[in-house]
Amino acid sequence: MSRKVAVVGIGHSVFGDRRDANLAELAFEAIKPAIQDAGITQKDVGFVSVGTAGGWYEEFLPAVVISEYAGLTGAGLIRCEAACASGSSAVATAYQAVASGQTDIAMVVGVEKMTEVDILTSVELIGRAGYYLWEFHNFGMTFPAYYALHATAHTKKYGTSEEDLARVAVKNHKYGAMNPYAHFQRPIKVEDVLASRVIAWPLKIFDCCPVSDGAAAVILASENKAKDLSDTPIWIRGLGVSSGTANISKREDYSSLRSATIAAERAYKAAKVDPSRLDVATVHDCFTIAELLAYEDLGFCERGGAVKMIREGQTEIGGKIPVNVDGGLKAKGHPIGATGVSMVAELTRQLRGEAGKRQVPVKHGNALAHNVGGTGHYCYITIFGRD
Amino acid sequence: MSRKVAVVGIGHSVFGDRRDANLAELAFEAIKPAIQDAGITQKDVGFVSVGTAGGWYEEFLPAVVISEYAGLTGAGLIRCEAACASGSSAVATAYQAVASGQTDIAMVVGVEKMTEVDILTSVELIGRAGYYLWEFHNFGMTFPAYYALHATAHTKKYGTSEEDLARVAVKNHKYGAMNPYAHFQRPIKVEDVLASRVIAWPLKIFDCCPVSDGAAAVILASENKAKDLSDTPIWIRGLGVSSGTANISKREDYSSLRSATIAAERAYKAAKVDPSRLDVATVHDCFTIAELLAYEDLGFCERGGAVKMIREGQTEIGGKIPVNVDGGLKAKGHPIGATGVSMVAELTRQLRGEAGKRQVPVKHGNALAHNVGGTGHYCYITIFGRD
Repeated sequence: MSRKVAVVGIGHSVFGDRRDANLAELAFEAIKPAIQDAGITQKDVGFVSVGTAGGWYEEFLPAVVISEYAGLTGAGLIRCEAACASGSSAVATAYQAVASGQTDIAMVVGVEKMTEVDILTSVELIGRAGYYLWEFHNFGMTFPAYYALHATAHTKKYGTSEEDLARVAVKNHKYGAMNPYAHFQRPIKVEDVLASRVIAWPLKIFDCCPVSDGAAAVILASENKAKDLSDTPIWIRGLGVSSGTANISKREDYSSLRSATIAAERAYKAAKVDPSRLDVATVHDCFTIAELLAYEDLGFCERGGAVKMIREGQTEIGGKIPVNVDGGLKAKGHPIGATGVSMVAELTRQLRGEAGKRQVPVKHGNALAHNVGGTGHYCYITIFGRD
Repeated sequence: MSRKVAVVGIGHSVFGDRRDANLAELAFEAIKPAIQDAGITQKDVGFVSVGTAGGWYEEFLPAVVISEYAGLTGAGLIRCEAACASGSSAVATAYQAVASGQTDIAMVVGVEKMTEVDILTSVELIGRAGYYLWEFHNFGMTFPAYYALHATAHTKKYGTSEEDLARVAVKNHKYGAMNPYAHFQRPIKVEDVLASRVIAWPLKIFDCCPVSDGAAAVILASENKAKDLSDTPIWIRGLGVSSGTANISKREDYSSLRSATIAAERAYKAAKVDPSRLDVATVHDCFTIAELLAYEDLGFCERGGAVKMIREGQTEIGGKIPVNVDGGLKAKGHPIGATGVSMVAELTRQLRGEAGKRQVPVKHGNALAHNVGGTGHYCYITIFGRD
């Protein structure tokens, strides 16, 4: 019905405080290696989708500025936004542009500059990613406060402890320390997390991902082009997307994200893959509790089973399903638009067997990316597979 | 290779100063009639793309707020931005979601609230749609100034007069006065335009589109669904997209928009239609000169032939190819994200034969929408056809 689409090139900037580079320069740090990795030139790219939430910098047309700087002028162009899933929404848009025959080769760029903020602070802007006029403005709900609701609900239902949350941070810092692109390069201990400053109880500062700058890029190609360009094309097997209510106060249950549960069902169905056949996953751990919710929403375990998974190391390399072995949002950083694209770059690297000391065993040849926008306002899930 | 896609439902709000409605309410004024027109319910919609440039209002996640208000929660969701072509970029994204088999029924919502501005003024924000850090910040280039460069270049090359520019405004006000959704409902004369205040010579205030609020919505369906839902499905025959440089100072020629010329070639090729087989078009007349550029960029006449077309009334109803007989951006208004979607609604109405006193003769059954972002930073062209 539609054409097969594969990832044939990946690129990644260093994530962190990147005041040394402007938006276009930062994006190009990811675009250039992606083009080289695919063995193409800018002229081959027919369509460019740029995932960036924006509002943090002066440029009102970030996609155009990036496109010109990178030598991509003339290609089809769009900016995609889906809050913290903006990167995945750009991947989905480029995927559909290739799948539908609109173009043979598409570039996805995810980028965000957050450490230098124009106009408003990043906290207020991130806060606005809920329902601004009601929940933020009237009740002062910010993102740590939203996820604290999820954490306390999960704790009440399943006995999740503060140590369990801390274990997620410890795991992800461990792998971040092995990833040269990660914002945080230092392993931490459970005691460090527990002793850190409370932001919105039970979440402490080490339960929260940092505010980062960064970029990632991937190149997608149609089946014929992919086979020409790559010996190891990584196919997009299926996509599942869903949305949640703008008002978190209208959600029925805080111990899971309904949009993620629905998106997962759709993605598994589209890819004809079930969780037992995944070798590795990247999930949206903007806060430690979010990673535990993801284990359950994605069916990596039964409801309430996430605590056992993290305690037993089932999501470490060598465990049942390694999760966020690039450091995750927690340690690699979360430059909003870059995150979903960075996930694709990491999973491609893993399925190609090029992840070095962070390499997971690849048995089934399948991987999953889970990217949440807001607190489940959006969920994009993408499943990849190698031949 | 990909599935056929048709427009099966359209909806439109009144454009103008709409301080009476918030963003979600305004969007719903278009969504509700679109759903009724298609004969579906919200549950049938698998994917929603929202075209909105944003930055004018407090909501940082406009798509989610609109989606919840309209009862569309759970569907796939994305916000698309391509400056003043944001609406068309949302149409393209939904089109590809259906064409690629991702969903059978997609909703496109275009909406913008511009008369009440938060944080910054609309002039500064529109100004930023060029290359902010260079051309706006250093040289004070705003949008009328950009298009004044195009006007003077066109005048120097082809002898375009201020009266010729005024004729575009007069034509579009004439049709705007027949369109109950248009911001301006009053016919004007050439003398009115010439006597109006100069904004950026040779452009006067009556050469400029207004700052408007408004929304439009369309529903797209796959071939099978479209035939079930509609006796008059309007097929998307082809899409052409291109981009231009962020710096207008890097353009080689100001007497045309290169991105529009390229996008037109791509769209005609994809649709297998040439300009002689179009019955009607909507073009991006943000300033009167922009409509004349479009005639030439789209091949409605040879280079330099636009002046003759407007003088001879070739783009009025009954002429060679009626253009902007809904009033265009100039008289209908230009709520940025809504514009591209409004164009689809108008062309659907025309091809169905439901445009009342503004109805054009339909001989070939084809229509074209031309939507420019920035000053040719983006160009989206979509060609439609009826059976």
